[in-house]
Amino acid sequence: MKYELYYWPSIQGRGEFVRLALEDAGANYVDVARRKGGVAKMMRLMESARVARPPWAPPFLRAGKLIVGQTALILQYLGPRLGLAPRDEAGRMWAHQLQLTMADFATEGHNLHHPVAVALYYEQQKREARRAAPYFTGERIPKYLDHFETVLDRNPSGPRHLVGAKASYADLSMFQMMEWLGYAFPRAMKRLTPKYPLLAALRGRVGGRPRLAAYLASPRRLPFGEGDLFRRYPELDP
Amino acid sequence: MKYELYYWPSIQGRGEFVRLALEDAGANYVDVARRKGGVAKMMRLMESARVARPPWAPPFLRAGKLIVGQTALILQYLGPRLGLAPRDEAGRMWAHQLQLTMADFATEGHNLHHPVAVALYYEQQKREARRAAPYFTGERIPKYLDHFETVLDRNPSGPRHLVGAKASYADLSMFQMMEWLGYAFPRAMKRLTPKYPLLAALRGRVGGRPRLAAYLASPRRLPFGEGDLFRRYPELDP
Repeated sequence: MKYELYYWPSIQGRGEFVRLALEDAGANYVDVARRKGGVAKMMRLMESARVARPPWAPPFLRAGKLIVGQTALILQYLGPRLGLAPRDEAGRMWAHQLQLTMADFATEGHNLHHPVAVALYYEQQKREARRAAPYFTGERIPKYLDHFETVLDRNPSGPRHLVGAKASYADLSMFQMMEWLGYAFPRAMKRLTPKYPLLAALRGRVGGRPRLAAYLASPRRLPFGEGDLFRRYPELDP
Repeated sequence: MKYELYYWPSIQGRGEFVRLALEDAGANYVDVARRKGGVAKMMRLMESARVARPPWAPPFLRAGKLIVGQTALILQYLGPRLGLAPRDEAGRMWAHQLQLTMADFATEGHNLHHPVAVALYYEQQKREARRAAPYFTGERIPKYLDHFETVLDRNPSGPRHLVGAKASYADLSMFQMMEWLGYAFPRAMKRLTPKYPLLAALRGRVGGRPRLAAYLASPRRLPFGEGDLFRRYPELDP
């Protein structure tokens, strides 16, 4: 199967969770909007009245006639097809559950720099964001990381993976969360990382997977930046 | 199968999506935290080191040995078992996709009255919320409702259901969204409702389903209130 991924071409964003899975599996895919005329193609597809089941927003995936939106659902669909999901139903549900919690975490990360409205620039809501920052770095990040560290610690198959005895898309997504946090909140993460040895080890292992390492070193991996889900604004990393 | 639902006992909240599905199907279930000692039981389960796959937060469902968190996943699991999901795989994915988009919408509704931090009271972030309100009622609500009205309009099986030719949990959840919006934003919704005739009709039909109507009229249906996901603060409905 040849997959078409549709996502904004200049940021990692939510699309990056999907890119990591496709890249790690060596899948045959096109990152449509990064090709010439691709953004226009993506917009036409989103607005076309002929699409009976229109996605709410990028990222979405096209696989033959199927169009699938919502990042966690895309991964639930791709996981078994890419060899990145457990074989058993309960394990698959658990991987999806963790992915949904990461989606909540990512949304909170975005809300931090857009507390008032997505329609406004960061600079227009900087005061509100600054007030929110200590709660995000002091309470929310540790609460989420506690959860995922616990999940690794309690995995009956061992703490090398979030789900079962093999790498899944949930591990790749957790890697991405840690990368973003390290980029956006270097001060908070320097303080916090020693408390999460299992997550730190997971991050290192995932980043060293041969196909993923090759992707991360390639121009296909977009840089971090201030148009993304997580952003490095020093005033938000107190 | 006897189901155990775990959720905060005094609000509709995210748990209400699950309650609606269980009630509409006439399922055998217990709303655990609403029984005597139930909240303590819920907290023990969340904190127990013997739970290998701990849910991130309520609501979660216990079905035999399985514990499932994340509202949309609970419904994905229950849907086929309660006769509230399409039979085909693509239809099931579509129902789940819509549910995930409703989850995003609900999260934005909560952010409106908690723009700075969940750890603070509304009164402590009222100024920020007030600034956010016109964006939420003027841009976000219409954008989401446009999407769901379009989904009904494009359903190849007709505009009576979001997915396929039969009622699914997605229809019940959409009903709940409309109820919340009508409660929390009476002014905005009075203005907006005429633009969404298919959603208005869906809301009426779902509310008239015999088992659901009986539930809504019973003391099991908790009242709307200012501890919930959507809240009626007149200053946020400009």
